[in-house]
Amino acid sequence: MADRLTDRELQSALGMLAGWSRVEGREAITKTFTFRNFSEAFGYMTRVALAAEKADHHPEWTNVWNRVDITLTTHSAGGLTDKDIALAKRIEALARK
Amino acid sequence: MADRLTDRELQSALGMLAGWSRVEGREAITKTFTFRNFSEAFGYMTRVALAAEKADHHPEWTNVWNRVDITLTTHSAGGLTDKDIALAKRIEALARK
Repeated sequence: MADRLTDRELQSALGMLAGWSRVEGREAITKTFTFRNFSEAFGYMTRVALAAEKADHHPEWTNVWNRVDITLTTHSAGGLTDKDIALAKRIEALARK
Repeated sequence: MADRLTDRELQSALGMLAGWSRVEGREAITKTFTFRNFSEAFGYMTRVALAAEKADHHPEWTNVWNRVDITLTTHSAGGLTDKDIALAKRIEALARK
């Protein structure tokens, strides 16, 4: 099982993840991505889904037309772990393309 | 612009949509679908996304691993219309396969 990140590790990781922030009241990080339309938003979700399945680590996410809200946490660890940071980096890389 | 359904029309439509219910505090309908794993859940979402894009009417939805919560409303009409019922029926048909 993955170890939970210390506060210092989390601060350091968030410093490299523009736009990601802590979720109020739970140990998770979140970011909202906005696209031109549903087709672009869902296309992006599909790429993230493939990355998530490959990593065997999945987001909690909500889509409303052109908007995708992504929240990451490691349920099995009851908090944030390296898996969340790794997936957030992958999600960022896919958003930049 | 589509007309909002009357209460009677909505009751009649919900009678044919097993598991769908009104959302508290807003004019929308919702249902939760559960699958064996993320792959099945996202595969289902992909089929719903294609149907939604074809109908030019999109869900508000949230996915957490094997669970997909779908909420339907017609933003442009400020409530529920035939478009929501048609999409709900399509979503049901896809879930049955």
